[in-house]
Amino acid sequence: MTPEDEVDYISGRTRLFGIVGHPIEQVRSPEMFTAEFRRRQRDAILVPMHVLPEDFDACLPSLMRLHNLDGLVFTIPFKARAFGFAHNVGEQARAVGAVNAMARHANGRWHADIFDGIGCVEAFRRRGIGFAGRSVQVLGAGGAGSAIAVAVAGERPRLLRLFDVDAARADALATRVARAYPDVALSLGVASAADIAGNVDILINATPVGMLDDVRLPVALDMLPPGLVVMDAIVKPERTPLLALAEQCGCTTIRGREMMRGQIARMVDFFLAAD
Amino acid sequence: MTPEDEVDYISGRTRLFGIVGHPIEQVRSPEMFTAEFRRRQRDAILVPMHVLPEDFDACLPSLMRLHNLDGLVFTIPFKARAFGFAHNVGEQARAVGAVNAMARHANGRWHADIFDGIGCVEAFRRRGIGFAGRSVQVLGAGGAGSAIAVAVAGERPRLLRLFDVDAARADALATRVARAYPDVALSLGVASAADIAGNVDILINATPVGMLDDVRLPVALDMLPPGLVVMDAIVKPERTPLLALAEQCGCTTIRGREMMRGQIARMVDFFLAAD
Repeated sequence: MTPEDEVDYISGRTRLFGIVGHPIEQVRSPEMFTAEFRRRQRDAILVPMHVLPEDFDACLPSLMRLHNLDGLVFTIPFKARAFGFAHNVGEQARAVGAVNAMARHANGRWHADIFDGIGCVEAFRRRGIGFAGRSVQVLGAGGAGSAIAVAVAGERPRLLRLFDVDAARADALATRVARAYPDVALSLGVASAADIAGNVDILINATPVGMLDDVRLPVALDMLPPGLVVMDAIVKPERTPLLALAEQCGCTTIRGREMMRGQIARMVDFFLAAD
Repeated sequence: MTPEDEVDYISGRTRLFGIVGHPIEQVRSPEMFTAEFRRRQRDAILVPMHVLPEDFDACLPSLMRLHNLDGLVFTIPFKARAFGFAHNVGEQARAVGAVNAMARHANGRWHADIFDGIGCVEAFRRRGIGFAGRSVQVLGAGGAGSAIAVAVAGERPRLLRLFDVDAARADALATRVARAYPDVALSLGVASAADIAGNVDILINATPVGMLDDVRLPVALDMLPPGLVVMDAIVKPERTPLLALAEQCGCTTIRGREMMRGQIARMVDFFLAAD
């Protein structure tokens, strides 16, 4: 029983997690991670921590010293800068050159990894769709696209095609992926309409095209083959212009929210495994 | 509507407050402040922040730089150390030499004050009981007792009698009170049984005697006059041995929880006034 002048979801014993970003108001992690902790019956909460870029290097070590803080999530613009603060960094994070989660282990050391790509793979796994032997087109080679490309490469696709409007960025990503997974066949650019119609199995949008009120498609196509699986990493809107087209064409679609759910589940595994 | 994979009490827009202490598990502020913020329809949460004594000087400036953190509460052992970090310190805190709350003002400056004593006065005010012209005995000259003595002195009692098992500590407190309120009549020691029977109006326990399983009374008396008002600053148990005796004797009693409620209300006023 909680007296009426108390709330029942936070106390002195509650373990603390934080999401560090700038800006911070738009993040969805506080409500989603906290719900996942509750589902797992953990007395833990994830709170927003708005750190200004000029304060990051001084603040982060202090946050890591908070004795009841067991993990941190990093978002824009800190994923690359946080990399250097961890004692150990996972394979995915090393390949991407950035981290988005850091967990304190029982010995006091901090382990970090990046889960955007792992979340994408997890969303496909939950739908029973594998990448092995498939031809995959990833659009966008920024933070999310890089992590997705690395994670997908780890699933042994037949071909991984990478595209970014900034060709040098796509090129740099291909180099990173090739270093981490030398056996995966890579190509650069957007597959042709004919290829998408016949030789691409999975299309993943990791560009911001289609976000919020943006009505554009990230590819110049007005038809998609019904056998294609289309995922959009964008969370808002849930049904992006690309996903709307894919639905109209009878494709299997996977929404950004599913990737986010997959990512959160795997990050909470990571946080709780550190106990 | 909150989707089932989200909680509704924390988001990226939630303003953050913290209680800084060592240890931290026993604090009640997270559930009580957060409830008070909710009652006032503020999207804010107060979380435990366990800082080790050796980290305090390095961590505190970083916490004060968190851009969405608007206030901090300090508990054992940091009330005196936190004093030096504020840009401005209130009258009560200056008299006591310690702070237990610090709020960021819109101009970025941090204001601090101590509210233990203010909470005690507020609890009396809510019961319609004033201190002006009354004779008051305060037992205990530690952190809580000091703050209570200073706050009560500010209410212009006829006589304020201070006692601590450590006579030097009571003496030092009397000096501080006299400096802050030179017009208030002070005396040292415990009033005699005869005085308590006839010449003391209000008895306040701010010692730890009677806490948890301690069955002792903080005064060697087996009767109290029914006209006496007795407050105990102890929160657990709610009905201390002193309050049990006072109830049996027909005294008016005020519980530690009422002081805590009064304190929280006044601290939240202080936090929100800083907007």
